[in-house]
Amino acid sequence: MGLEVLNQWKCFGGTQSVYAHASEATGTRMEFSVFDPGKGPAPVLYWLSGLTCTWENFTAKAGAQRYAAEHGLILVCPDTSPRGDDVPDAADEYDFGKGAGFYVNATQQPWSKNYCMYDYVVSELPGVAEATVETTGQRGISGHSMGGHGALTIALKNPDQYKSVSAFSPIVAPSQVPWGHKALGRYLGDDRAAWADYDATELVVARGWNGDILIDQGSKDQFLEEQLRSTLFSDACAKAGVTLDLRFQEGYDHSYYFVASFIGEHIAWHAARL
Amino acid sequence: MGLEVLNQWKCFGGTQSVYAHASEATGTRMEFSVFDPGKGPAPVLYWLSGLTCTWENFTAKAGAQRYAAEHGLILVCPDTSPRGDDVPDAADEYDFGKGAGFYVNATQQPWSKNYCMYDYVVSELPGVAEATVETTGQRGISGHSMGGHGALTIALKNPDQYKSVSAFSPIVAPSQVPWGHKALGRYLGDDRAAWADYDATELVVARGWNGDILIDQGSKDQFLEEQLRSTLFSDACAKAGVTLDLRFQEGYDHSYYFVASFIGEHIAWHAARL
Repeated sequence: MGLEVLNQWKCFGGTQSVYAHASEATGTRMEFSVFDPGKGPAPVLYWLSGLTCTWENFTAKAGAQRYAAEHGLILVCPDTSPRGDDVPDAADEYDFGKGAGFYVNATQQPWSKNYCMYDYVVSELPGVAEATVETTGQRGISGHSMGGHGALTIALKNPDQYKSVSAFSPIVAPSQVPWGHKALGRYLGDDRAAWADYDATELVVARGWNGDILIDQGSKDQFLEEQLRSTLFSDACAKAGVTLDLRFQEGYDHSYYFVASFIGEHIAWHAARL
Repeated sequence: MGLEVLNQWKCFGGTQSVYAHASEATGTRMEFSVFDPGKGPAPVLYWLSGLTCTWENFTAKAGAQRYAAEHGLILVCPDTSPRGDDVPDAADEYDFGKGAGFYVNATQQPWSKNYCMYDYVVSELPGVAEATVETTGQRGISGHSMGGHGALTIALKNPDQYKSVSAFSPIVAPSQVPWGHKALGRYLGDDRAAWADYDATELVVARGWNGDILIDQGSKDQFLEEQLRSTLFSDACAKAGVTLDLRFQEGYDHSYYFVASFIGEHIAWHAARL
């Protein structure tokens, strides 16, 4: 499959790697990072990042390797969109186009050719990334903001593939907030029925979830009221009979200083379920 | 003193702040970061960063706040040089000028007006930074690469001010390596007697150190053989009767993935001495 090793660093006794490969799903060269504690077969925790991010933000800033080494989890972090000069973009828009794939399969022109991040994360990345490590075959998924939306929707639609799911500051109801209106409208078109298939608040009612879900949300997150609206998801989980632990963390905002503060608890939580 | 708050984030239960102020030592606006666990008076650990860095690299990438919160240490991280359009620079040289102050007081034109990072760190920053927090009055110092050089030289010359000192991948003998020849030659001139006052290997023999010193050095550090040459310092410590724990960490390189892997041990080590 032509996997290129871009970088490798020893980190907390394990190996932090960055790879690139030619993706069939996006038709582009994609980069992703893998942290392997290096102590034999381990479960894999996928991390999906938020708007404007690449694999690097979480990998360099969250301090997750320490906990992954401690609890014996492999970490895999993809990019947030296709990249490259030939990929259509929305110049000057941080919340659409490159860096903002929203983990959907776009159906509208000119996005549908490359913006297939749902298929990339669900169907292609596991085969490519897990070929570089020894796994137990068990997978969890988590993410931040747009990546929290990705983690929740991907887990809810693929319960056989992901045994555990958590999120930080997720977009939980894209059909009801400006970021989602913009992204889903342009990637998927005006038919809101298509949006429901990428909306965690709708999916959890439609499909349920055989397990518990953990969400951390900063109480001083600048996007909470307009874009994130966590309680829409907790209401839906209550309606669906799904156990959600939605923790409002007093005084924290949307930054990686928040993610770093609680990633250890999320990794321990996933490790207990994988 | 006109301290400007640039940013504040809650982090591991404490507060990560970034400040700016008009520095007398450098004649420029200087930025620095402070992490305060927020649990009452605490000792202060100063962190000096390496070539090309600002306060942000360590603050965002080392994951140090977790350990500082655990052990009750305040962290203060200055920039690595004066900044601004009016500050002389060496365009396209990553190892001299902006981002490369080497923690000296320059005596040569055109550098001597602004490049007074030694005075800034030793005489000005403590007053400015510690006014924002409650301290016990005790201080330690550490740093990475060029910042390890800064930490060692500043501690050795100011034993009353810094009770503990450690370093990651430090430049230990600038008088004997290319980075040092270039920086000390241009900031201080050709008189090598002036260099000795900023050379840890010479200082430890001349002045000794009333305590132990901890250094972590990656065995696969790409700069080890030519620029860092840690054993020059361990030989000098042996000669001076100073206890040095120089740990070669197998397989680690010069990156922040290395610093992150061992910063917890350094913070615990400083906390035990402060």
